[in-house]
Amino acid sequence: MIILGIDPGYAIVGYGVIDANAGKYRPISYGAILTEADEAFTKRLSVIYDDLNEIIRRYRPDAVSIEKLFYHSNQKTVIGVAEARGVTLLAIEKNGIPFYEYTPLQVKSAVTGYGRAEKKQIMEMTRRLLGLSELPKPDDAADALAMAICHGQHLGAVYRQNLIGGK
Amino acid sequence: MIILGIDPGYAIVGYGVIDANAGKYRPISYGAILTEADEAFTKRLSVIYDDLNEIIRRYRPDAVSIEKLFYHSNQKTVIGVAEARGVTLLAIEKNGIPFYEYTPLQVKSAVTGYGRAEKKQIMEMTRRLLGLSELPKPDDAADALAMAICHGQHLGAVYRQNLIGGK
Repeated sequence: MIILGIDPGYAIVGYGVIDANAGKYRPISYGAILTEADEAFTKRLSVIYDDLNEIIRRYRPDAVSIEKLFYHSNQKTVIGVAEARGVTLLAIEKNGIPFYEYTPLQVKSAVTGYGRAEKKQIMEMTRRLLGLSELPKPDDAADALAMAICHGQHLGAVYRQNLIGGK
Repeated sequence: MIILGIDPGYAIVGYGVIDANAGKYRPISYGAILTEADEAFTKRLSVIYDDLNEIIRRYRPDAVSIEKLFYHSNQKTVIGVAEARGVTLLAIEKNGIPFYEYTPLQVKSAVTGYGRAEKKQIMEMTRRLLGLSELPKPDDAADALAMAICHGQHLGAVYRQNLIGGK
């Protein structure tokens, strides 16, 4: 199953595409959409929308995993991040891809098995689970890969429960 | 000059199209895009995007006037409103229409000449300036018409300043 993880934003949108198969993860592609601070904000939204459409069409994910946004995230940027996240959700909807939202706490737990894990530990586990020799750069790409793994782990948990339940 | 005013939201997006000509205003169309609460949020964003594209293509506005959104607007809904506003801004950008943002205070001042005007006074002045016998419904449509008038008044102020300045 191909999962596209997204770390939403307006200056940087991290993305990570992985293949999740029975609890094993293989990185397919990752990176970040960057928008220019001196561009009009609407133009930045447009770049995000177009680039996401391109990524979705190229990798044809079966699911998108995206971070939930909270009111208390960052007072200075949360409105802009939410506006860009709206455009991100629109691209997902227009391509008909099912999407799943996870909180930072859920990502921590799913990736490290520990809800209070530090950023460093999440990054290190993400690197290991994907069999990468180095940590993906920028951080936003690594965060997006962690988002994708989070969804894979949730799928795995459902799969294991069904086995135990005899389904 | 055709101005499209927008009152952003995710459940209701108010819109109002006016013709502004030397400080006179003529209503062309107004109403609201409504989205269903039991639909997926991404589907609601998609409805807003498609309907706005339709409105923009039908009335071909020379400018869009849209309300600024602030962090302290409404804690419960501001993330969703910002996400929908992002989609609204994308539709404006994709159609290549210049857009202008105004604060509620600027709208009050522009429409009534008084920054502390009450909602009722703004609505009444909007009705009068447009020569309507009744107040537009829903409120979101009336708010959007006020947004459009606000931009018209700003244009008028610039025009008058240029006359005084001999330009």
